[in-house]
Amino acid sequence: MAREMIRQGGRSARIQEEVHKAVNALLKTRDRSELTVPMVAESAGVTPSTIYRRWGDLSQLLADVAVAHMRPISEPEDTGDMQRDVEAFILQYAEEMSSKVGRQMLTDIIGSGGGGATVKCCGFTQLHLETLHQRALKRGEAGFSVADAVDFVVAPVIYHILFEDREPEPDYCRALVTRLFQRAD
Amino acid sequence: MAREMIRQGGRSARIQEEVHKAVNALLKTRDRSELTVPMVAESAGVTPSTIYRRWGDLSQLLADVAVAHMRPISEPEDTGDMQRDVEAFILQYAEEMSSKVGRQMLTDIIGSGGGGATVKCCGFTQLHLETLHQRALKRGEAGFSVADAVDFVVAPVIYHILFEDREPEPDYCRALVTRLFQRAD
Repeated sequence: MAREMIRQGGRSARIQEEVHKAVNALLKTRDRSELTVPMVAESAGVTPSTIYRRWGDLSQLLADVAVAHMRPISEPEDTGDMQRDVEAFILQYAEEMSSKVGRQMLTDIIGSGGGGATVKCCGFTQLHLETLHQRALKRGEAGFSVADAVDFVVAPVIYHILFEDREPEPDYCRALVTRLFQRAD
Repeated sequence: MAREMIRQGGRSARIQEEVHKAVNALLKTRDRSELTVPMVAESAGVTPSTIYRRWGDLSQLLADVAVAHMRPISEPEDTGDMQRDVEAFILQYAEEMSSKVGRQMLTDIIGSGGGGATVKCCGFTQLHLETLHQRALKRGEAGFSVADAVDFVVAPVIYHILFEDREPEPDYCRALVTRLFQRAD
């Protein structure tokens, strides 16, 4: 994952940046169903073939843009306590992912299946939780199983967001975290 | 959900049946990206406007067809033991949902967001688990929380299928069920 986080320079990176910018700008004024590769290419100032060569098709491009939004931009908040760190993470995660934009990003990533966007996306989540775990160890806390945190805290939140059967309210998210650490005890 | 299970008769049901049949038949020989509403309409012997009126657009239709596949067709297997019933359910569920067809159905349902397909889909899962819970009570077993089974057994399996970061192997699924019932104790 670490290499994923490094912003690479050069021409290829500039093309990616322009194309991503174009997609984000277009999505502000249009419904995604109206987007086409030639439209994106024109507003990014590249040829459609550049986009097809690099992303394959529109759904892969939209997934790539969505993953870029998922990329953690800063170190997770340090509350000084392992359980509160995980709580702070899931509360923010649930709020972002259950927003209209968040749901759309999840749909784009999942809909692109097999393109690697899905694995990258949960790689970011894993990386984030791994940071919290390592930080806990440094503090002399017991640490926690990142895999369990994914299964018993992240997965239920994502399930309810994707299947729209309940809102991942803050109290619900906190209860998931409490149970994760009860189980760990 | 119960009403959902009842096959409704009449003309409207026959149209739905023909259109679903047409979609399933077309998907056997073509990639879904090739499907169009006029194509489905022609092979179902209805007008495109019938499909637009009833389903709105192709993605809603594909989601509706996917949900129909999700609909439980028989009573869940009765192993005589609550935990083994849940285990039998999740093993079959994980196997079906992680198949190419299952992943595609999940993507269609999630991709159609807001159209009600998502809620129907997890409604079937809930109904299935509710049946297992009621059956356990009849046996004089303690029963289990259906909500917990969704959060701590179904959700992790779905998460890993959708984000493709790990296969929901039988041993993994069994461990989730074991932990659900340990927690309940």
